[in-house]
Amino acid sequence: MELELVTIGTELLLGFTVDSNSALVGQLLAGSGIRVARSTSVGDDPAQVTQAVAEALARTRFVITSGGLGPTSDDLTKQAVAQLFQLPLEFHQDIWDQLLARFARMGRKLAEKNRCQAEVPRGATVLPNPRGTAPGLWIAGDLGEVVMLPGPPRELRGLMLDEVLPRLADRGDSSVIRSRVVRTTGIAESAVAERLETAERDLAPLTLAYLAGLDGVDLRLTAWRMPSADAVRLLEVAAEHIRSLLGSHVYGSEEEDLAEHVLHECRGRGLSLAVAESCTGGAIGARLTAVPGSSSVFAGGLIAYADRLKQGLGVPARILEDHGAVSEETVVAMAQGARSRFAVNVGLAVTGIAGPGGGSSDKPVGLVWFGVADDHGVESHRWVFPGSRQEIRARAAQFALWKVWQRVRSAGPVSRQAD
Amino acid sequence: MELELVTIGTELLLGFTVDSNSALVGQLLAGSGIRVARSTSVGDDPAQVTQAVAEALARTRFVITSGGLGPTSDDLTKQAVAQLFQLPLEFHQDIWDQLLARFARMGRKLAEKNRCQAEVPRGATVLPNPRGTAPGLWIAGDLGEVVMLPGPPRELRGLMLDEVLPRLADRGDSSVIRSRVVRTTGIAESAVAERLETAERDLAPLTLAYLAGLDGVDLRLTAWRMPSADAVRLLEVAAEHIRSLLGSHVYGSEEEDLAEHVLHECRGRGLSLAVAESCTGGAIGARLTAVPGSSSVFAGGLIAYADRLKQGLGVPARILEDHGAVSEETVVAMAQGARSRFAVNVGLAVTGIAGPGGGSSDKPVGLVWFGVADDHGVESHRWVFPGSRQEIRARAAQFALWKVWQRVRSAGPVSRQAD
Repeated sequence: MELELVTIGTELLLGFTVDSNSALVGQLLAGSGIRVARSTSVGDDPAQVTQAVAEALARTRFVITSGGLGPTSDDLTKQAVAQLFQLPLEFHQDIWDQLLARFARMGRKLAEKNRCQAEVPRGATVLPNPRGTAPGLWIAGDLGEVVMLPGPPRELRGLMLDEVLPRLADRGDSSVIRSRVVRTTGIAESAVAERLETAERDLAPLTLAYLAGLDGVDLRLTAWRMPSADAVRLLEVAAEHIRSLLGSHVYGSEEEDLAEHVLHECRGRGLSLAVAESCTGGAIGARLTAVPGSSSVFAGGLIAYADRLKQGLGVPARILEDHGAVSEETVVAMAQGARSRFAVNVGLAVTGIAGPGGGSSDKPVGLVWFGVADDHGVESHRWVFPGSRQEIRARAAQFALWKVWQRVRSAGPVSRQAD
Repeated sequence: MELELVTIGTELLLGFTVDSNSALVGQLLAGSGIRVARSTSVGDDPAQVTQAVAEALARTRFVITSGGLGPTSDDLTKQAVAQLFQLPLEFHQDIWDQLLARFARMGRKLAEKNRCQAEVPRGATVLPNPRGTAPGLWIAGDLGEVVMLPGPPRELRGLMLDEVLPRLADRGDSSVIRSRVVRTTGIAESAVAERLETAERDLAPLTLAYLAGLDGVDLRLTAWRMPSADAVRLLEVAAEHIRSLLGSHVYGSEEEDLAEHVLHECRGRGLSLAVAESCTGGAIGARLTAVPGSSSVFAGGLIAYADRLKQGLGVPARILEDHGAVSEETVVAMAQGARSRFAVNVGLAVTGIAGPGGGSSDKPVGLVWFGVADDHGVESHRWVFPGSRQEIRARAAQFALWKVWQRVRSAGPVSRQAD
């Protein structure tokens, strides 16, 4: 089964509101194996609503709308759709009584202008909406079917779960649309694509989508309309295959953050961690401490933004003078300093040029040095990141977490103490 | 002038990604008086793309698309639109050379499969995209005009501002839809509404929308389709009126971050700043260093997540034992410690319980203490924030910045030195 969505609201077209309802409904339907073929946003204008719904019905014969069911002058969805189906609006006393009772419970009076919310196109099914004042409406006729839902996401979600999905369950087959995300980092989208090129053919009937972001490239595998057990099995096999092709670039799945994995690997080995951040300015600490329970691993660290704070960490003034604050020598001293000053097993350091100013031909904007020190020694990495100041910083924070994750994993499972 | 948007991506219909691009483009166009008549999302399927673009052209003869211009197998927008206009794709050596140079600057190799990104439908205008690898493309033909933009929001935004809007400027009428945002913090939405209750009537013909977020409540004033000069004047007067009613809760306008204002006020007074962060874990440092040029004010600071790091800052063990890490005594010692250890004028400290665990009836989850120390002394504040761990941390970071902003502003304009 497939259908179309029509979201209604002038604020969507003006960009004052982001249309999150389409994504919400799309997700809920996918879980029931129903595909959204298209989603359309139009303004609070009955002619636009009528046209968009009529076109969508002509394509799929089933449309879900959101918005335009409220009591104000710009709420016109019900009128537009009723007219399309040539159905008169009828006042329902029971809906009105329920509205009055609901408002009385909250100690509020219901304005007369709300009476229109008790009007129902003849023959439509009323979908009760305990979370708001406008019920959902389901019209079936020669043109197909239209389910009208209110715009507030909480009400829309409740009506989808309580009223719409149960009614659609009987129509779909037993198939599902299911996805799985493999999260990668430290590798460009084109390089991922190159490594997966031959594998892509073997993935069928699964589809593969690339989603590049500041944390890396997410790979979304999707199983389309198949029995749930088959989908789970195919996705598992495919994710494992991708993992084998991309090695340590794969750090997690779904919405997992790399910081969680860093903490997990450290915790399993009894390792504590501290940071020394220059260009990221606290962003790595913020990522790590965003994870509940991070305090069992993460001690804290220094935001060594000014050079004199780097010196306070034990970076010799001569290194800063001879090699500069953004250099391998400095980042190594920072990582070792973080480890010894904060008495932890692992010290992670970052120093770079986030821009927009401060770059040179030798040291361009985007150049970042990374250092990881543990009781085996210290390693350093140089990388040049593209993008704006914010993007360079976010990418650098992710890269730093990736490097410490790799280092800790490769160090084996034995618990160690700091010197 | 009006046009339609077509956003392309299967992930939009599956609900894995919320379509924020439509809102972004809608907002930018509204500022130029251009109305988006409809916005359509379709999947990564050339037939769907072709159909949606053809239908939109039939209605408005002008379409902007986003997405599907990348190098991977699911990027098919260019092919679909070129076919619709019956234009062959031609390889442009200059685009390819620029891509190679861009990658070389970052010290990386460009995979051969990126060659398709240098292909252009015959006669199309190429819109340079310095922020990414896929240029925008502008096709004009018998069917109308199609502007194809890449999906990543930063690239889309840059191309709209640099290439698309300047070319459309001549086509609109002289009226504009213009908005202005007044940013407030430290006050609840209902309290803002109460203070503005009588003023709201005087705002007509402007409209006022409340947008509550983790940084506070944003107030969006909108002037609808009027001469630009009238809109600017009305918005200015209204913003000033709101400012007078809300006092120091108003910290900025549009997309300004409070961190920028903190740095500005410090810079104007010759004051330097350092932080000591416990529950925010680096988030305040990250906010401050996100601002270019922050190093002239912000020295850095300590992420004092573990108690022993708080002691390293000069918080006596007895205070931690007697009053706990989340207490007025601790935050005062942290603020003073940040100021003296890092030799700055102003020390800002935060310690609290971000949850989800660790709360008690005395010290519930959401309790945060703030300290600001300067050469006049030290002030402390206690606040309990609602929400999840992430929300509590974000709200606490904003509150901390608000308190240091107020303190610095009230200290007068004289430049001071650290002890």
